[in-house]
Amino acid sequence: MKQTITVGLLGLGTVGGGVIEILRDHKERIQHKTGCDVTIKSVLVSDLSKTRDLPTSSTTLTDQYEDITRDPEIDVIVEVMGGIDHTLTILLEAIEHGKHIVTANKDLIAQHGAELFDACQKRNCDLYYEASVAGGIPIIRSILDGLSSDRIRKMMGIVNGTTNYIMTKMSQDGADFDSILKEAQDLGFAEADPTADVDGLDAARKMTILSILGFSMPFNLEDVEVKGIRGLSLSDIKYAEELGYRIKLIGIAENDDSGVSVSVEPALLPIHHPLSNVNDEFNAVYVYGDAVGETMFYGPGAGKLPTATAVVSDLIAVLKNIRLGTTGTAYVQPQFPKQVKPKSEQLSKKYIRLHVLDRAGMLNEITQIFAQYDISFDQIIQRSSDNEDERELMMVTHKVSEEDFAKASHELEQLHSIRHIDSIFRVEGGD
Amino acid sequence: MKQTITVGLLGLGTVGGGVIEILRDHKERIQHKTGCDVTIKSVLVSDLSKTRDLPTSSTTLTDQYEDITRDPEIDVIVEVMGGIDHTLTILLEAIEHGKHIVTANKDLIAQHGAELFDACQKRNCDLYYEASVAGGIPIIRSILDGLSSDRIRKMMGIVNGTTNYIMTKMSQDGADFDSILKEAQDLGFAEADPTADVDGLDAARKMTILSILGFSMPFNLEDVEVKGIRGLSLSDIKYAEELGYRIKLIGIAENDDSGVSVSVEPALLPIHHPLSNVNDEFNAVYVYGDAVGETMFYGPGAGKLPTATAVVSDLIAVLKNIRLGTTGTAYVQPQFPKQVKPKSEQLSKKYIRLHVLDRAGMLNEITQIFAQYDISFDQIIQRSSDNEDERELMMVTHKVSEEDFAKASHELEQLHSIRHIDSIFRVEGGD
Repeated sequence: MKQTITVGLLGLGTVGGGVIEILRDHKERIQHKTGCDVTIKSVLVSDLSKTRDLPTSSTTLTDQYEDITRDPEIDVIVEVMGGIDHTLTILLEAIEHGKHIVTANKDLIAQHGAELFDACQKRNCDLYYEASVAGGIPIIRSILDGLSSDRIRKMMGIVNGTTNYIMTKMSQDGADFDSILKEAQDLGFAEADPTADVDGLDAARKMTILSILGFSMPFNLEDVEVKGIRGLSLSDIKYAEELGYRIKLIGIAENDDSGVSVSVEPALLPIHHPLSNVNDEFNAVYVYGDAVGETMFYGPGAGKLPTATAVVSDLIAVLKNIRLGTTGTAYVQPQFPKQVKPKSEQLSKKYIRLHVLDRAGMLNEITQIFAQYDISFDQIIQRSSDNEDERELMMVTHKVSEEDFAKASHELEQLHSIRHIDSIFRVEGGD
Repeated sequence: MKQTITVGLLGLGTVGGGVIEILRDHKERIQHKTGCDVTIKSVLVSDLSKTRDLPTSSTTLTDQYEDITRDPEIDVIVEVMGGIDHTLTILLEAIEHGKHIVTANKDLIAQHGAELFDACQKRNCDLYYEASVAGGIPIIRSILDGLSSDRIRKMMGIVNGTTNYIMTKMSQDGADFDSILKEAQDLGFAEADPTADVDGLDAARKMTILSILGFSMPFNLEDVEVKGIRGLSLSDIKYAEELGYRIKLIGIAENDDSGVSVSVEPALLPIHHPLSNVNDEFNAVYVYGDAVGETMFYGPGAGKLPTATAVVSDLIAVLKNIRLGTTGTAYVQPQFPKQVKPKSEQLSKKYIRLHVLDRAGMLNEITQIFAQYDISFDQIIQRSSDNEDERELMMVTHKVSEEDFAKASHELEQLHSIRHIDSIFRVEGGD
């Protein structure tokens, strides 16, 4: 039996450094658990001239991926370089050469997961990707193994740390979106180009992966309806709080027999919902199963060591499989054909904030329109506005279809007493 | 390859009924995941004359365990009957006959886990017990697999639903301990004899199991220092809230290189700590690892279907192992010898509530004693008392050794200005 497993590392950025650190610091622990040693033989980097700390004096650096994918001594590829098309090419070639894969790359798994799995199955290779969703939280394992006997109905995730940090600061310090984004960028916490985070794309990729696994259907990124948090206003955060809610950027994936809907959007959650108290850069995934009921998995969604922990835990799983001769057996093809339910057919509660003219009969006009569509209200607040002829009106409805709500909103906009609709959000939880 | 795995079920109570229900409702799902069918061939019950719903018309009932343990057709034993010594005898005999074991029995695993594992290893049998800790929460898998690359430093668990329910109601409704215990008993939520729950023994068993797994050391129930919640007063709950804390019955297991200490006790947690918002009968386990940092796993700690979900998910793991020919390989002996650190050597913050005489110099006398032992304070509140000559004094210290604090408390009791010490609790988190 092989006593040493040889790894090729793709990428030596933050997470790559963390992987080397954990493999070094937890050497005996890993040896005890798996009965073998791990050695990193070579590392793919883009710039050979940079000086770096390498795991051992015998580790070689290369900027030619074939040095790793074609090296017959290498058993496992650990991919922490990011990127999509080029990385896919490298991994497919590695699999062709019989290498097992551990990756932290959510973009790649969300877009090309099925292709990678097919290639792995053909070659009896392992493919593990726990770090691709919610960093240090072992959510993928929990869905695949821990809840394997259950039918998952709903998953809600705070799966982007940058936006959760921004929204927490807005809510706690009352500072506005732009200034906190700037602060987060200065702290190296948000990317210089924050688009993928702020506009919800990063979260959408993670929700794609969770939906494939949780519902056992082959979803794509395109199946996720995405709305980011740009332009989120402090007023909404404040009024939501007053109504008993917190606003979070949540990925919501729901399966109700007539189909699955997956979205990422800022939504109101009851203050006592387990997700409402997930603050700062922390992530959490809430899972509702037919039998188990409510569960939640909470932890760091990013960062050098948390992400590296997930990568090395995956590597340990591969080591065990190699020793037991069971590589390539973990993957199960989706059980069901994809069944996407358009968000317009979905029912949800809605929060709406309006500026209205302060005049007799105004509220009656508004409620008449809602009544036409059978939309009733859970809560209403009216407040004075900066302009003394106007009032601010916040309403939380009972469950309503997206379609009816859009029609009612459109009619509202035509009313003379309505100056403008400021914001509309979905309201989740507590039903 | 075997297409049908045959199960013998020990016990047909609440959880046993749940196992039958999940196996029936999720038949296709399990078949898809494992490539095989599960059939329950026979069920051990104590009273054959009771009428029951059985999984299939061909399932037989027996009150003789040998009918199951010695049946060559049975592959896996699912034990949901509870009990310790007699159950151990049955399971050891089953293992002797090559049966794999799935159990929900925390008492048995906490007391005889090592013996059962040794027997299983000799016979290449599987032993899974996810349901023994925190019901539907896949915490054992998360520690063994998801966080396998990390060094776990601390685990804190709300692992007893009955006491958490009682404490939540005390805190939310302001009703006292005895009346809520009675109510919980009437609702069938607390046992007629609530001792194991209320005095912390049930939680201690779960913490024993978590400590063995998390720290890879062979602990026993006797290594856990246990204090229950009998006599918990509403005043402490109220004052804790005022100081920014919530009181929870928490299992605390800590490993700081000089040793491990494991305890179960009511303790104060900062209101924003992830465990503070775990309410009613819910359970949660907070895990702190060197690399991953803070994680938390939340869900239902008991109940028919949540517990049965964990049992059937374990059964699915056994099915996969049987098909891959890897049974008996999941268990790893503890890596380290047991290293118990007496609680007296531990440092923690303390909350103390006193009734004192309202007279000049009183506070000075008290603080002098604490100063002698180098104990300083984080927060102090003084309030009027029912008796107008007296005052109530609540203090939260900085970190102090158990020993120094005990000595200081003893000296306090001798002071004339102190009527009595009402309560002393550990304060956790937020350091």
